[in-house]
Amino acid sequence: MRKDGRKNDQLRDMTFHLDWVSAPEGAVLVEAGNTRVLCSASLTEGVPRWRRDSGLGWVTAEYAMLPRATSTRSTRESVKGKLGGRTQEISRLIGRALRAGVDYQALGENTIEIDCDVLQADGGTRTASITGAWIALQRAIKVGKTNGFIPGEPLKDSICAISVGIIDGEPRLDLPYEEDVRAETDMNVVMTGAGKLVEVQGTAEGAPFSREELSQLLDLAASGCEALTRAQLFAAQAPQGARVTLVDGVVA
Amino acid sequence: MRKDGRKNDQLRDMTFHLDWVSAPEGAVLVEAGNTRVLCSASLTEGVPRWRRDSGLGWVTAEYAMLPRATSTRSTRESVKGKLGGRTQEISRLIGRALRAGVDYQALGENTIEIDCDVLQADGGTRTASITGAWIALQRAIKVGKTNGFIPGEPLKDSICAISVGIIDGEPRLDLPYEEDVRAETDMNVVMTGAGKLVEVQGTAEGAPFSREELSQLLDLAASGCEALTRAQLFAAQAPQGARVTLVDGVVA
Amino acid sequence: MRKDGRKNDQLRDMTFHLDWVSAPEGAVLVEAGNTRVLCSASLTEGVPRWRRDSGLGWVTAEYAMLPRATSTRSTRESVKGKLGGRTQEISRLIGRALRAGVDYQALGENTIEIDCDVLQADGGTRTASITGAWIALQRAIKVGKTNGFIPGEPLKDSICAISVGIIDGEPRLDLPYEEDVRAETDMNVVMTGAGKLVEVQGTAEGAPFSREELSQLLDLAASGCEALTRAQLFAAQAPQGARVTLVDGVVA
Amino acid sequence: MRKDGRKNDQLRDMTFHLDWVSAPEGAVLVEAGNTRVLCSASLTEGVPRWRRDSGLGWVTAEYAMLPRATSTRSTRESVKGKLGGRTQEISRLIGRALRAGVDYQALGENTIEIDCDVLQADGGTRTASITGAWIALQRAIKVGKTNGFIPGEPLKDSICAISVGIIDGEPRLDLPYEEDVRAETDMNVVMTGAGKLVEVQGTAEGAPFSREELSQLLDLAASGCEALTRAQLFAAQAPQGARVTLVDGVVA
Amino acid sequence: MRKDGRKNDQLRDMTFHLDWVSAPEGAVLVEAGNTRVLCSASLTEGVPRWRRDSGLGWVTAEYAMLPRATSTRSTRESVKGKLGGRTQEISRLIGRALRAGVDYQALGENTIEIDCDVLQADGGTRTASITGAWIALQRAIKVGKTNGFIPGEPLKDSICAISVGIIDGEPRLDLPYEEDVRAETDMNVVMTGAGKLVEVQGTAEGAPFSREELSQLLDLAASGCEALTRAQLFAAQAPQGARVTLVDGVVA
Amino acid sequence: MRKDGRKNDQLRDMTFHLDWVSAPEGAVLVEAGNTRVLCSASLTEGVPRWRRDSGLGWVTAEYAMLPRATSTRSTRESVKGKLGGRTQEISRLIGRALRAGVDYQALGENTIEIDCDVLQADGGTRTASITGAWIALQRAIKVGKTNGFIPGEPLKDSICAISVGIIDGEPRLDLPYEEDVRAETDMNVVMTGAGKLVEVQGTAEGAPFSREELSQLLDLAASGCEALTRAQLFAAQAPQGARVTLVDGVVA
Repeated sequence: MRKDGRKNDQLRDMTFHLDWVSAPEGAVLVEAGNTRVLCSASLTEGVPRWRRDSGLGWVTAEYAMLPRATSTRSTRESVKGKLGGRTQEISRLIGRALRAGVDYQALGENTIEIDCDVLQADGGTRTASITGAWIALQRAIKVGKTNGFIPGEPLKDSICAISVGIIDGEPRLDLPYEEDVRAETDMNVVMTGAGKLVEVQGTAEGAPFSREELSQLLDLAASGCEALTRAQLFAAQAPQGARVTLVDGVVA
Repeated sequence: MRKDGRKNDQLRDMTFHLDWVSAPEGAVLVEAGNTRVLCSASLTEGVPRWRRDSGLGWVTAEYAMLPRATSTRSTRESVKGKLGGRTQEISRLIGRALRAGVDYQALGENTIEIDCDVLQADGGTRTASITGAWIALQRAIKVGKTNGFIPGEPLKDSICAISVGIIDGEPRLDLPYEEDVRAETDMNVVMTGAGKLVEVQGTAEGAPFSREELSQLLDLAASGCEALTRAQLFAAQAPQGARVTLVDGVVA
Repeated sequence: MRKDGRKNDQLRDMTFHLDWVSAPEGAVLVEAGNTRVLCSASLTEGVPRWRRDSGLGWVTAEYAMLPRATSTRSTRESVKGKLGGRTQEISRLIGRALRAGVDYQALGENTIEIDCDVLQADGGTRTASITGAWIALQRAIKVGKTNGFIPGEPLKDSICAISVGIIDGEPRLDLPYEEDVRAETDMNVVMTGAGKLVEVQGTAEGAPFSREELSQLLDLAASGCEALTRAQLFAAQAPQGARVTLVDGVVA
Repeated sequence: MRKDGRKNDQLRDMTFHLDWVSAPEGAVLVEAGNTRVLCSASLTEGVPRWRRDSGLGWVTAEYAMLPRATSTRSTRESVKGKLGGRTQEISRLIGRALRAGVDYQALGENTIEIDCDVLQADGGTRTASITGAWIALQRAIKVGKTNGFIPGEPLKDSICAISVGIIDGEPRLDLPYEEDVRAETDMNVVMTGAGKLVEVQGTAEGAPFSREELSQLLDLAASGCEALTRAQLFAAQAPQGARVTLVDGVVA
Repeated sequence: MRKDGRKNDQLRDMTFHLDWVSAPEGAVLVEAGNTRVLCSASLTEGVPRWRRDSGLGWVTAEYAMLPRATSTRSTRESVKGKLGGRTQEISRLIGRALRAGVDYQALGENTIEIDCDVLQADGGTRTASITGAWIALQRAIKVGKTNGFIPGEPLKDSICAISVGIIDGEPRLDLPYEEDVRAETDMNVVMTGAGKLVEVQGTAEGAPFSREELSQLLDLAASGCEALTRAQLFAAQAPQGARVTLVDGVVA
Repeated sequence: MRKDGRKNDQLRDMTFHLDWVSAPEGAVLVEAGNTRVLCSASLTEGVPRWRRDSGLGWVTAEYAMLPRATSTRSTRESVKGKLGGRTQEISRLIGRALRAGVDYQALGENTIEIDCDVLQADGGTRTASITGAWIALQRAIKVGKTNGFIPGEPLKDSICAISVGIIDGEPRLDLPYEEDVRAETDMNVVMTGAGKLVEVQGTAEGAPFSREELSQLLDLAASGCEALTRAQLFAAQAPQGARVTLVDGVVA
């Protein structure tokens, strides 16, 4: 039994507040346990200079954390005047993950900028960001298609992500902060709705890990991503402003 | 009649979600019409180096906007690598406003850092920030007193703020974005709960203004601040996690 | 009686050295008591990108202080690699104040950049900057009209500014540094030559202030601005390189 | 057959020029095909402030590329004034990888800073950096032990890394640039001398990948790391200034 | 005959306004033709961390130009967020030049920071800065000795500087901007009052130069520095606020 | 006799590894004693914006040092986020020196960017950079002429540089670090192959120097530059990948 009462292969309860803010073309407030991330997708015509006249679109992402999303306050990167390595690394990961599910030709010469701002952090902020970002992306694309900006169907498949890790020798799914800091091995897995791998990032925080352990973690991640995919597809059909919840892996 | 149906001297409906995030010592999500600001107060022992061994505390504030809080996305200041003038100006204003209500001696050598992050912007973000920041400050101070960090009662009076302006020749209270951009004169007023002035910042955006117009605007601001003060004092007594609303100036 | 022998409603003696440097299209060295600010106006054809093809001109301003303008040396902002909040705030104020007196249509697609560099600081640097900047602006515009760059008469009215404050319970005009740091309330007022208000920035440094006190301060500021306006209009007619002085409010 | 004549499971020839520069406590110039990385390890007494009086040491790393290491010149990050995301990501990876092989207690309160500067880039710069960095680290530790700075044996195991990928549907080991840009899936694997996993970073650049493909890539990586480990252990015993080569996986 | 009527070996007329600003311990406004530089020297107790407990003092310098010191406005380095190469190079030169005349032991553990701010630029700003900076330094040292901060006599000799160059094939002394841009060879020479060389910086802007030409330029520079030294020594004895002029090399 | 066994007028042995890296159009690894600098020249079509449509080319240079090129590690300028004054000064010097030997008309509208990266530093890094940079430049120009990019013969003469100084009262040629730090006077001299002066930078580090000492130093530098020129011209004819050595001033 884990501290928060979950089984090792159980996701935290999640809620997706669709269109929680109204300015962006697509937006969702994701709650995964105590982790809370506001994902928004901004659709604009045109692409960066290096991509002009290619007929192809572009998707990019930025991740950031409010200074007091965590138990002690961290200095704002805008005040420090530079982006930290962790921030850039996660921003790059989110962008790469989403791009794996996008057909640039069908997007046309349009840019979608994803912003994932962590309002409260309790582990799994990068994976919640990816899962939520896809929902924001999907909603922005729907707007772009309705408005005639986007010529085709740019979504090849849904993209979601989850963290897994080995804590006290046991593989566990969806780590809160308390488990994350104690994990011997920590892994983030990004998958498509069809169950293929997009990104695998496993790190030995304590002792190095074996191929068997890696395999167990991937199994866990796959089962978590299946549930996340169900929630995402449900959200994709939900009306403006709806709230989608995932309780013990079941969409409510 | 204004576009949103309000009378010239009517506040937008406001909601204060107390403790909307749980990490900070004090926190509130403020909604003023469509403007949404997350205010948090972080209490730490000790003061900046230049104030050490003075027996006095310190209060400081930072204001920021999410990139897609507005109808078009703005570049993150962390990405640009520098703080814009507007951001710094508002951060300084919030800090100065709150400090006017604080007794540093009673605070002891503790620092309270206020963060006001605008999640959605529809005018009045700086005044909503000040009004909310005081609630976050008050909650953090309560925690500090309970924990024995804070030796006395540092709150001398409550502090709130509201915008007023002249639009189409008429003085109006609490401007949404649509009115703000059209205002001939634009003024932000910070007041104490006792009705004294802390800060008056009036700017002729179009034509210069007369002493009479200034006087009318200050009357409007005073009436708005009276209502805000009532809501703030109500919030100060409200239980953990409560939601306080102000509808047409009446606390609900 | 004030420390420097002035009455409460008396301006410091001022001198405007017109064209103190010769490179800028307009320039003036302003002395207000011991405060010394070099204001220059640079006129260039064209406007920033966001304003092109609008037929409208642009006026902008930058304020800075030499490191040893004050009694202790401050680090250069160029060395720190970033602009402080105070610098940006004052730069924005000066630009906004001057723009209130300018007709962009008449200016045509030209840009005037104002630089206010404080060589010696003894209080009132931002208000001396505004008052001097208008003179530099006026001289640059005269050059632009003579040269045929500027199609119309862009000056709608003169713009000047003065500080007022409450010290030891008494409202006083034109505060030197020694009074500024002791002021309970501190206010900067920008007015047009016609006596209308452009900007009112009042701050309670000590105790909050009342409407009556605000009113007294505005009266004082209005009388000071009347004298400043007389000096500005005199300077506007003065020959190249002239020196205009204002002694006890009288132009000499 | 690959363009450079290698089999799919064949490493590029590698050379380790030990002590290629003499200032650092440990240094090696690594050549892996046309990729050339200068790795140096700087040993200093003391640890960063946050780690003081813990009795534990610290290991950190920085990666950089000369502007003309690549076929087109890139702007220096020192000139741009900020570190790119890629640079920071790789620096973090190298540091994390090496730390997995270090016993901080045995290192004592000493810091080892690793610098990996890419002089010529032809794919696999991050993995060559890790493999070389461990050799530099090992040599610096030997110096520190000889000089009595380092109290114990901080090296728990050797650490090496290799890239693998799927090109034209075939899993391949040790990708040069030409293959790297065409890879459908690209993976960097960090392993210990004992054959355990330290870091697995797999990315679908083209189509998402399956568990089977992941497994094949890990097999390839494991075989490559076995050869690299042999070369590293040989280098660990080699005299000052020696040159160690690895031809078709055999140490020469 | 030169454009400004001078002979090839004739200095521009110079004026030193001693104590032109009053805050710094030493200050002088230098006018050399149309070049105008405000030099100030700030004396503070203590030395930078790396020099503490050495018993030795420190002298450092910073050079900067107002944006409109030149015929076209340049962007402020504080706005750009970084110091240009030219600025840093000249700052380093001024500091190095002055340090050549200072006995650190006699200065005691005190720091003197020199600021040279160019208010108007017409060639020779770096040499005028050095010549003026020595006067500001000398005045600050006098204050420090009077106040008992400075234990000995730190001034070993006076330091001055002048520019020379070859224009239209002729060696000339003290180049204004108009000659500077046309010079085939351009040289700045720093000398002691005793006529020894401190710094020689000669650059072929057009054609490379011969040893003979170098020799002629050094002769010219030496004669110019003799006159500058006379003015400096006169200024060293002059009363507070005096104005020292150098007309055709003669102190007036 | 000097510490390294050389006579006062003897150069250190030098080696030029031509084309040590293969990506740049021109490249050479220069070894001068223990100093090791990698010089590369990147040729690109087009010129900076301010030079377009002039028919003239451009040559620019950047100098940098690896963090552990020296006996203690220095922080990377990319990590600090700004270029130090020394770096910029040397970069400017290298560019200026090379430009003295280039005919822009014959270069056509092409840009050559020189990078000098110090891999190991033992004095004379800036002069070794200039001497090596000319070889890289020459090789890049040969490529550009072969490819038809460069219309004429842009090389007017070869450019080399050497350091000289007075140590223990004796003029010496080509200072290693150990002598450089003890030098009373330190001078860098840039010369053309024809023996004319391009740049003379002499600095009194200890006592000021006389005209006679300056003259002796220039004699020494001229003899050193003669030998360097011989090596450069030999290298200019050498085949791809050749190694050119200069032993006691004789090309081997």
